[in-house]
Amino acid sequence: MASSKPEIAFIGLGAMGFGMATHLVNQGYKVTGFDVWGPTLERFVAAGGLAATTPAEAVRGKDYCVCMVATAQQAQAVLWDGEHAAVPALPRGAAVLLCSTVPCSYVQSLEQQLLDGREGRPDLLLVDAPVSGGAYRAADGTLSIMAGATDAAIEKTRFLLQEMSDPAKLYIVAGGIGAGSNMKMVHQVLAANQILSTSEALGFAAHLGLDLKKAADAVIASQGKSWMFEHRSPRSLDPNFQPIASAVTIILKDTGIITAEARRAGFPTPMTSAAEQVYFTGVGRGYGADDDSSLVRLYWEGKGKVGPVAGTATTDEEKLALVVALLKGIHLCSAGECIAFASRLGLDLDQVFELCINAAGGSAMLEAVGPEMISLVKNAGGAAAGTQAGDNLEKVVSELQGAVDEAQRLKAPIFLGSQALNLTRLALAHRPTTTPAATSGAVVKVWGS
Amino acid sequence: MASSKPEIAFIGLGAMGFGMATHLVNQGYKVTGFDVWGPTLERFVAAGGLAATTPAEAVRGKDYCVCMVATAQQAQAVLWDGEHAAVPALPRGAAVLLCSTVPCSYVQSLEQQLLDGREGRPDLLLVDAPVSGGAYRAADGTLSIMAGATDAAIEKTRFLLQEMSDPAKLYIVAGGIGAGSNMKMVHQVLAANQILSTSEALGFAAHLGLDLKKAADAVIASQGKSWMFEHRSPRSLDPNFQPIASAVTIILKDTGIITAEARRAGFPTPMTSAAEQVYFTGVGRGYGADDDSSLVRLYWEGKGKVGPVAGTATTDEEKLALVVALLKGIHLCSAGECIAFASRLGLDLDQVFELCINAAGGSAMLEAVGPEMISLVKNAGGAAAGTQAGDNLEKVVSELQGAVDEAQRLKAPIFLGSQALNLTRLALAHRPTTTPAATSGAVVKVWGS
Repeated sequence: MASSKPEIAFIGLGAMGFGMATHLVNQGYKVTGFDVWGPTLERFVAAGGLAATTPAEAVRGKDYCVCMVATAQQAQAVLWDGEHAAVPALPRGAAVLLCSTVPCSYVQSLEQQLLDGREGRPDLLLVDAPVSGGAYRAADGTLSIMAGATDAAIEKTRFLLQEMSDPAKLYIVAGGIGAGSNMKMVHQVLAANQILSTSEALGFAAHLGLDLKKAADAVIASQGKSWMFEHRSPRSLDPNFQPIASAVTIILKDTGIITAEARRAGFPTPMTSAAEQVYFTGVGRGYGADDDSSLVRLYWEGKGKVGPVAGTATTDEEKLALVVALLKGIHLCSAGECIAFASRLGLDLDQVFELCINAAGGSAMLEAVGPEMISLVKNAGGAAAGTQAGDNLEKVVSELQGAVDEAQRLKAPIFLGSQALNLTRLALAHRPTTTPAATSGAVVKVWGS
Repeated sequence: MASSKPEIAFIGLGAMGFGMATHLVNQGYKVTGFDVWGPTLERFVAAGGLAATTPAEAVRGKDYCVCMVATAQQAQAVLWDGEHAAVPALPRGAAVLLCSTVPCSYVQSLEQQLLDGREGRPDLLLVDAPVSGGAYRAADGTLSIMAGATDAAIEKTRFLLQEMSDPAKLYIVAGGIGAGSNMKMVHQVLAANQILSTSEALGFAAHLGLDLKKAADAVIASQGKSWMFEHRSPRSLDPNFQPIASAVTIILKDTGIITAEARRAGFPTPMTSAAEQVYFTGVGRGYGADDDSSLVRLYWEGKGKVGPVAGTATTDEEKLALVVALLKGIHLCSAGECIAFASRLGLDLDQVFELCINAAGGSAMLEAVGPEMISLVKNAGGAAAGTQAGDNLEKVVSELQGAVDEAQRLKAPIFLGSQALNLTRLALAHRPTTTPAATSGAVVKVWGS
């Protein structure tokens, strides 16, 4: 049976790549793996894979090459640079799936290199196919995949994309090479902000004196809920922040892609930029290799050390409402930054929404206000055409302001929450005075059109 | 000679108050001081003052009372609360000069308490008279003073305001009680951002590998110059951040007044809010009592600990240009936030400008772009009427972006610089496309009108 399936080369057997490659082995493919880290290769052989000692050796004679290294620099090194690079060794007409999270600008430059008349390989079929879902779903073959390429390249590789993804979570992204990476990037706007909002909310809850486990359970049952909060908060509350599921340096890398690509496009990213500075601070404190949920330390370390402070919220119910208001405000603004950036990049906003609510970027706020935001950016001149399911913007602002007021009384830093409040204020300041009271999705207009 | 001068009660003999009260003694006034800290009172007696054991005792029979405690809470305690409070003990028609930095809302509530029919003291003349200039100028009688009050109260106390201020730096602020505090508050927008921008710029210079003393000298000779940079940078570069001239908690208190009053007015303060979160972080790290210049630690602590990084600037000249671009961008936006907030509060913008460039909030950028910003907010609908001395906004943004790009490569946090870049981007996004290329002062429009 296995013999009827094509041979696959797989470069990069890290936490994600190892799971993906091993899943393909389990599905009956003959997979030849390469990784710079020897013990990983041995483990891959024990799982039924074949090992190569160079990228060139891995791909020789293979019609399919999946590249799942960590960064664009690594991708360039294994695909192009030096005598053992993969590209020159690939047979004519082979397909290259770049599944790493890289900047759109990198994968587009890779396409140009391939198309180059003298040095290139215009016969190869490149697919820009970043993934999302974590190591468990990688090994399970149920990732979200967002793939951009020519029709021919998609056609040739569809079976392989399907093997690695959940049937409902394979997104073919219009726009060719770069569009897949852009889709991943706007999803990571949500991820970058919502990983950190989990730490910020639990740090704030600590300053408020709440029982953190109970607070986390209450958040998950509220409109402050996010996929990231559900997945990160248990590790934030573990004394050792275990298990290490995703390191601070990983989300920092993705955050850097967002802000650098946004600067290249002249697009403002006030939420993600604020998050990035906190990530830099965490890495500078020596937390880079720790689980990203451990950044709660940056938020709660000052508790009891900032002099005499007194908040005004007295009951657990009041305090919890402040934590939820903080998260709602942040998630409203991360949704706005995601959708406005996706619009600027020309992505299909309905596809962005569907992908994000079903992936790690999901949040209750995105579900509630996303459709209104999309309607607003599609009809830049007018009011939202769809239903206005969100709260009145003034109400969200007022509740968020209550949280920011209390954090100030407690001298608790809330980088994202105070940023979100200022952004909603800027949105209100730029709203035409003739418009009726805005629903909360209207904040999306602050990013411009 | 002394007998011809009125007796003065002086409450609050801290770093500022001691200098002010002692200066009055040296000018021949009979000054009765009160402070909760006994040794300070003894020192005041040694300097020729008289000591009282309660606020009430200090003011009894005195026609003038200067209050220079640290906070609104302390002012309320010494003036109103308890059996030894000052207000009930003051003779009819006496004047109270509140020189502490307090929220406008507090000094206005104090005015209301005085005017209250049954419990009040409507006969007293209140002056809202915050000061600026530091302990040296306090002792020298050359402070900046911004005084708001009724004409009668100003008339009665003018001689005393003149004794404590530089002749060119006594500002009578139109608008009565609260206007003086508002003037001080908008000045502190500059102070809060520029104290921190000094640390941020020197931290960035450290990540760039510059000689910090040479870098500081070069900044002072550049358009990145500010009064705060000149005064803070020597202490930032001292291994022990000495002398302690102004503690982190002091600027954090003023920062909190700005952001809280802005929230009360529904006004966005993205620059000052970002600074406040860093101040909270510094206090949480245990730096609250240290000199505010010591916050450079939060910026340079990661140098050498963030993994392998490489910038693109190679010469000292290129690196210095990035540091200057960072400061110019931050100071452009702190100027915008100051002037936009002053406009919202109804202050005389020409007076704001004159006060700020001659006080601790001064910067080369404010001098260059302030007049254009003022013209723009006065003529909200149209273009700037005055000369457009500032750089093209796109140029400032482009240079600032170079600094933010490099900081990202070095994984160096630049909270204010990245905020400033995003604000300028938001300003460009909201600029009518029909407008010709904006000069840099146009960023002021992002705060709304």
